[in-house]
Amino acid sequence: MIKFDAAYNMVMDSAFSTGAEEVHFTESAGRILINSVKSDIDMPPFDRSKVDGYACRQADIGKTLLVVEIVAAGMQPQKNIEPGMCSRIMTGAALPSGADFVFMFEESEPAGENMVRYCGKSPRCNISYRAEDVISGEVVLKTGCIIRPQEIAIMAMAGCTKILVGKKARVGIVSTGNELIEPDKKPSATQIRNSNAWQLLAQVERAGGIGKYYGIAADNKESTSKFIETALSENDIVVITGGVSAGDFDLVPGVLGDQGLKMLFDSVAVQPGKPMKLFTGNRKIVFGLPGNPVAAFVQFEVIVRPLIAKMMGATFALSNSINLVLGTDYSRKIADRMAWIPVSLNKLGEVIPLEYHGSGHIASLHEATGLMSVPQGQSWIQKGETVSVRPV
Amino acid sequence: MIKFDAAYNMVMDSAFSTGAEEVHFTESAGRILINSVKSDIDMPPFDRSKVDGYACRQADIGKTLLVVEIVAAGMQPQKNIEPGMCSRIMTGAALPSGADFVFMFEESEPAGENMVRYCGKSPRCNISYRAEDVISGEVVLKTGCIIRPQEIAIMAMAGCTKILVGKKARVGIVSTGNELIEPDKKPSATQIRNSNAWQLLAQVERAGGIGKYYGIAADNKESTSKFIETALSENDIVVITGGVSAGDFDLVPGVLGDQGLKMLFDSVAVQPGKPMKLFTGNRKIVFGLPGNPVAAFVQFEVIVRPLIAKMMGATFALSNSINLVLGTDYSRKIADRMAWIPVSLNKLGEVIPLEYHGSGHIASLHEATGLMSVPQGQSWIQKGETVSVRPV
Repeated sequence: MIKFDAAYNMVMDSAFSTGAEEVHFTESAGRILINSVKSDIDMPPFDRSKVDGYACRQADIGKTLLVVEIVAAGMQPQKNIEPGMCSRIMTGAALPSGADFVFMFEESEPAGENMVRYCGKSPRCNISYRAEDVISGEVVLKTGCIIRPQEIAIMAMAGCTKILVGKKARVGIVSTGNELIEPDKKPSATQIRNSNAWQLLAQVERAGGIGKYYGIAADNKESTSKFIETALSENDIVVITGGVSAGDFDLVPGVLGDQGLKMLFDSVAVQPGKPMKLFTGNRKIVFGLPGNPVAAFVQFEVIVRPLIAKMMGATFALSNSINLVLGTDYSRKIADRMAWIPVSLNKLGEVIPLEYHGSGHIASLHEATGLMSVPQGQSWIQKGETVSVRPV
Repeated sequence: MIKFDAAYNMVMDSAFSTGAEEVHFTESAGRILINSVKSDIDMPPFDRSKVDGYACRQADIGKTLLVVEIVAAGMQPQKNIEPGMCSRIMTGAALPSGADFVFMFEESEPAGENMVRYCGKSPRCNISYRAEDVISGEVVLKTGCIIRPQEIAIMAMAGCTKILVGKKARVGIVSTGNELIEPDKKPSATQIRNSNAWQLLAQVERAGGIGKYYGIAADNKESTSKFIETALSENDIVVITGGVSAGDFDLVPGVLGDQGLKMLFDSVAVQPGKPMKLFTGNRKIVFGLPGNPVAAFVQFEVIVRPLIAKMMGATFALSNSINLVLGTDYSRKIADRMAWIPVSLNKLGEVIPLEYHGSGHIASLHEATGLMSVPQGQSWIQKGETVSVRPV
């Protein structure tokens, strides 16, 4: 049994790149950027007005000014602003030459035919200067970031319509266990419905990968071999649930050994998820996750999901924990493993651990908005202390 | 100009339901659940072993026991456990009648042919009892929740393979402004690239809606009318960017009035996004968002996104702010509006406001992981205080 941090590091060290592919920037949401993006223009590209108002010389503030032109956005100003002149100007329009100041309509008053005057109290110049945000050639998006709506806006502004992103990781899912039936069946007295595979498929999609489910392997070597062999041939990562404890019918380790994969760890000091196993070889990474659905859920989120992100090129925010305040005392009897505890937030935004009967209690995750990590050896956290929570 | 909270409430009050549709549970990730989900079985459905071990009577702990059967998961136990007997049992297998205790392989020792004995130190019973998590007929998923991987697992376990979800809100996007060109073009001296529409499309998708972009309306009444009319006819919500300030070419309010929509507010005491407008009528909701991309981004996240969620049936977590600690002093000169400030987290997990030149500075959002809300009237927040941050 190894410590959680050691297991995490071994998993991340086993990552290989899924490669890159070019996509149109409008199709890139949720992908990982592989090339950095530079702007081909200054931002703003010219001195422009921040408001609807009058462009003039700062020295003329308070004087009566002749309106010489109306400058709309997108139009090239035709008139030079001399002393005593101004142009009526719209938000986003280019500043006329000679002008160094814009006052708002709301701070102007008419002063005769085609004449206006500033009548506000605290003059502000209301100009966005060329290149004040970005200089042409500057990197505006860093390699390894996840592409969100704001990154799409930045690509648009920078004129970068084709980008390289990490290819989606292919993740195969195999369930094991003679007790399992699929959700559309009614279980008999000793059966349970397979929930893990469907949960994991949704987790893979949320992680940005492509999931494929292979079905329930029966608890015999032939069936287990066949399912695993097919899944290995079609995927970068295979996640197998069940069949990884010490039971007489836990065939997974043997079958993977036959396929030339090596077991890097066989259990982890973590709760839930202790029997988790890692196998690698032949450019494949295989996780044996426990059959219990909470354990499978948690270990996918904290171990498999960061691996998928890394393989697709992510260099930022592989684990996205945040520090929040605990809203009630927390204690546990046995602290020989680190723990991930399902939590929700109370109305004050404080962390409240959820009632949780153990690693089969998937219903507890419905109320959960995060997983609180409790370090190995720690059995008590006081209300008001800061805890680390991973949103789920 | 109205306060931000008042604007938010008016927007949310204008929501109407997009209706419901049935989907297979495996296709439901990211949707909003409209019906509640009840379990058709107890969970666990039978008393079962949590571990690989020996099932026996608690009174026999420490005695030498005869192994009468091997019970695999999914199999019906054949033997009754009498005093002095045990069954070898696998994780997830049904507990044989007569047994009320399971000790692990790791805590057992052989005691003659087909005989074992408990040799651990602190006996635990290692049984999950029937219905200890969920009783048949109990509600396991509440109406109005967003469906995440864990909800999919719960549906699977409850045998609920078809569910009702809110229909996706249809959101039309119209850009206005003669200065705009699309991202694949190189701007001339007075033009800028359209980034808002592509950003908003990605934001609509992230919010679970279906976005459609109609293009850039020219700054004349005919073009603006045509674009808006088409967008209104095909969508529940229309988001128009630009054309909403006080400029001579800001035609949007007039055109919407002609379409029979009524303006509910024309500006909001919020930064960025002050010129934001809301129009409703004929079962349509229209937002006039500023052309500045940071303002459009922020107001979509804090106003439009919760509306979309509500219209699709969400009753939980419409605004998902979290309370974090500010890592540096924050101040602003003018505090006449509430503000949403782009922030990132430092290595200690504390909130750091980002350098931010104003509502055109979209590049600042690349580093942003959240928006910190600063109340109207507040110009100063001290390092170490708790602030409210909305993840973006």
